[in-house]
Amino acid sequence: MSNGTFIVIEGLEGAGKSSAVALVNDWLAQRFPGREIVNTREPGGTPLAEEIREIWKAPRQEAMAPMTELLMVYACRAQLVETVIKPALARGAVVLGDRHDLSSQAYQGGGRGLSAQVASLAQITLGTFAPDLTLYLDIDPAVGLERARQRGALDRIEQEQIDFFLRARETYLAAADKVDSIVSIDASQPMADVHRAICACLERHL
Amino acid sequence: MSNGTFIVIEGLEGAGKSSAVALVNDWLAQRFPGREIVNTREPGGTPLAEEIREIWKAPRQEAMAPMTELLMVYACRAQLVETVIKPALARGAVVLGDRHDLSSQAYQGGGRGLSAQVASLAQITLGTFAPDLTLYLDIDPAVGLERARQRGALDRIEQEQIDFFLRARETYLAAADKVDSIVSIDASQPMADVHRAICACLERHL
Repeated sequence: MSNGTFIVIEGLEGAGKSSAVALVNDWLAQRFPGREIVNTREPGGTPLAEEIREIWKAPRQEAMAPMTELLMVYACRAQLVETVIKPALARGAVVLGDRHDLSSQAYQGGGRGLSAQVASLAQITLGTFAPDLTLYLDIDPAVGLERARQRGALDRIEQEQIDFFLRARETYLAAADKVDSIVSIDASQPMADVHRAICACLERHL
Repeated sequence: MSNGTFIVIEGLEGAGKSSAVALVNDWLAQRFPGREIVNTREPGGTPLAEEIREIWKAPRQEAMAPMTELLMVYACRAQLVETVIKPALARGAVVLGDRHDLSSQAYQGGGRGLSAQVASLAQITLGTFAPDLTLYLDIDPAVGLERARQRGALDRIEQEQIDFFLRARETYLAAADKVDSIVSIDASQPMADVHRAICACLERHL
């Protein structure tokens, strides 16, 4: 379907995703000068999906049913994939995503125990569509959440208990173990070492 | 699971759903004095689901992917069923819904050609949960849309072409033909006759 390349950065809160996205952007711009780079984030990435993200992220009185949370994420994903990612890949662009389907597998699948529902929704919404390369930044949730806390107020997901994030991390690690195109990077190292590991991984895979 | 009763009013734009809802409310209040009646509407019916409904209904520049539309509806439905409808039925209330899952089967399934996806989502989101009685108000889409137009500006769905509504109507009629608890009522009759037919149907089924 496409000549483009879809790269995704994944990881728990405070793992250093934003810094990794900036690094990969720079690396791509130097390695493939002139090539279009499209940055996305999930949930969100289109005006409509960002509106849903706002509702999704906001702490609220009304308890959000786990299936509601999951379906909202996939609504965002369907919109982003169909209207932004697939057209960009068809143009030959590199799409660099801050989170994608693996986040749902980790947070809603592992964290909330909805793995079967996540698998069904991925099948309905994405079929066989998947990133070419996923860089998973692995960090101890306790460390990552402390970093996130220092950045400011925690959103609805960040307010979950530590067990939720431990289950999400297990799911991430199991996926990296199983799928060749998902690479786990130790994000507890000094930032320079994390960045070196990311660049080495990009060299190997692209 | 429940001692309550779940009644749903369905139909195309301009079929007279609001008037039917008011009538059924009155009928229930007279027939079962003191019994709790909970009114819902879909998509929506909780503060969170109503926020999603606003995004869903608004005409916008950005084309909404059919799967996005469908997933947003089910996000609303999951929230309404889990946080409002099931608890109300467990309390023994009568829940009177302005639309429910059959709307998705008709509009997104029949109208947009996503029947398989609708069936999967209904399975994931609802399992075997279903209304006790659905009153489908049947009307020629051309007549119904003209009524809707006279009420004011058309929303994103109401702006669809007539073929879309013809396919939705076919799906409604096929469901009424197949499922005993879905009753089709000729909504092209004078309102008094429609109301008599609704009351007769309630007498038979409740």
